[in-house]
Order: sequence, then C-alpha cells, then structure tokens
Amino acid sequence: MVGILDARPRVGYFYTGKTSLGYVSDEIKRILVEDVKSMPVVLDESTSIYDAIVFMFLEDVGSIYITNDGVLSGVISRKDIIRSVMGGTDLYKIPIGVIMTRMPNIVYVEPKDSVLSAAKKLIDHEIDSLPVVEVIEKDKNIYRVIGRITKTTITRLFVELGSND
Amino acid sequence: MVGILDARPRVGYFYTGKTSLGYVSDEIKRILVEDVKSMPVVLDESTSIYDAIVFMFLEDVGSIYITNDGVLSGVISRKDIIRSVMGGTDLYKIPIGVIMTRMPNIVYVEPKDSVLSAAKKLIDHEIDSLPVVEVIEKDKNIYRVIGRITKTTITRLFVELGSND
Repeated sequence: MVGILDARPRVGYFYTGKTSLGYVSDEIKRILVEDVKSMPVVLDESTSIYDAIVFMFLEDVGSIYITNDGVLSGVISRKDIIRSVMGGTDLYKIPIGVIMTRMPNIVYVEPKDSVLSAAKKLIDHEIDSLPVVEVIEKDKNIYRVIGRITKTTITRLFVELGSND
Repeated sequence: MVGILDARPRVGYFYTGKTSLGYVSDEIKRILVEDVKSMPVVLDESTSIYDAIVFMFLEDVGSIYITNDGVLSGVISRKDIIRSVMGGTDLYKIPIGVIMTRMPNIVYVEPKDSVLSAAKKLIDHEIDSLPVVEVIEKDKNIYRVIGRITKTTITRLFVELGSND
C-alpha cells in the first residue's frame, strides 16, 4: 500500500499522504479521556484496609481513590494491599491513609487529555489506574476526582476499535 | 468522510469502500497473539503463597501460571491472593495449588489467534491475563505455556498504534 485517497462530498478525492497505519494513529489520537472514562470509586482516608478490600471486591475494581471532601488525597491498589499484608499490617486496625500513595505523588489525567497520553502514563509509570481530575488549585494540589482510566478502559476501547466493520 | 481510495503501484487507485474507522479495525484484526505476547512467568504448584507473592513482586507481574513439567495446571492472580488473605489462609504454609484457578477453568489463547480475540476474552471473562498455549492434547487438557497476554500488553500495543505518524 502506497497511500490513501480520502473522499469528501461535493469535493472529490484528495491525496491524504497517509498510510493506513497513519489513519489508525489519527483515529486513536482523536479520542479524549472524557469520551471513555468510567466512574471513580472513592473512599475516605479513615477506612480500614479490611473494609477497603471488601469494597474493592464489591465494586470489582483494582484501585480505589481516597478523597477528603471530594478532593483527591491518595490512591490505593491491589499491589499496595498485598505489600502491606506481607509487612504484617493489621488489616482491621490500620486505615488506608497509612498505606496509600499520597499527593503529590499521584499520576493523573484531565478530561481533555487524549486517551493516548493516558495510556502512555499507565505504561511509563507502571500503574493500572489513573484518576481523571478537575484542577481546582494546581499550586496547592487541589484536584476533584471525576473519573478513572484503567488498563481495562484501554482494552475495552481496543476491542471497540477493532470491531468497527 | 465518505470513504477511502487506496493506491497500488502500477495499478492506480481503487475504492476500498472503507471509512477510516474501518481501516483501524482492519489493522487491529491483522495483529496476532504471537506478534505481541510476553514471556510467561511460571511456578510450581507446591510453592507457598508467600513465596509466590515475593516472586510476583520481583517479576513485577499481576498473574502467575502454575505448571507441572511444563504443562499448564493453574493460574493465580493478585485478586486470588487477596481473597485468600481475607479468608485467613496461612501464607507461609499453604501452597498456591490450593488457591489457584485450575484447568479446565482457565481461559487461554493460541499464538495464531488475533490479539482482538484475546482482548475480547480479557473483557468478557473479567481477567487481567491470558496464558498463550501450544495445544499438546486437547481432550486431556494438556497445554504447554509459551507466553502471556495481559491488559498491559494491549495498552502497550494501543500506545504503539497511536504513535505511528
């Protein structure tokens, strides 16, 4: 394949200069975080690790975001939980606030970011989940959680893109 | 956009009848499991849950395949481990063979399957990882593990496809 001609109504055909892989890339770049994000699953810092695990199973998610009055303060993953178990942490007594990853060390995305940049962050930072936030005050790290993007989101999107006949 | 004309050397242009989303789907369907699979991470059934967790962290994977003389006998995930912790299982004494998902209940793919079908299986069965197997004897459920496909594989592939300029 050399390149692709595109067609527009009442204009005719024009040479796009693209290969079909270029088209794939264009279509992927066009998708925004806000188009595919799922609902965030949030808990309070004072929740015990045990209750957080139960909540994780009930909601069937691998990561939970921790908020204070709606403001993102931390993230906890299955990996964090297993690590705390290995360290002999008392799951019933210790609150998730003790073992969570805390701001400003949380990698996040915004609704108008491309899904491609979100997927890159998931790979580069070796994480399973990204909170989608609305920036309230950047200097003070005040972000409101409004969604989540996970490797499941990307895999589901991949299936959708592959099923467009 | 109405449709795409494709070009072939010494043939000229022809109407493909495709939209650009159709191209995306075609490119995705063309990718096979064997093109993108990673190395499998395997352990023996007699390994303790504790040792399996340590191995999981060292290898930085979310799932481990359990084999007997190279033949797939089970799969264990972070979720399985957390569930066993909640049930009060002694991590040091109980072998992974006790808590793993056992054949024939394991969803797998073969090297010549499309990555799209693998991604569909990950979504439909709500799992994070699929062993890539070579079928030795189907009736007796004898499969040799030769790789793995995870949601990370799909996310990495998505990033690659989106970065083809």
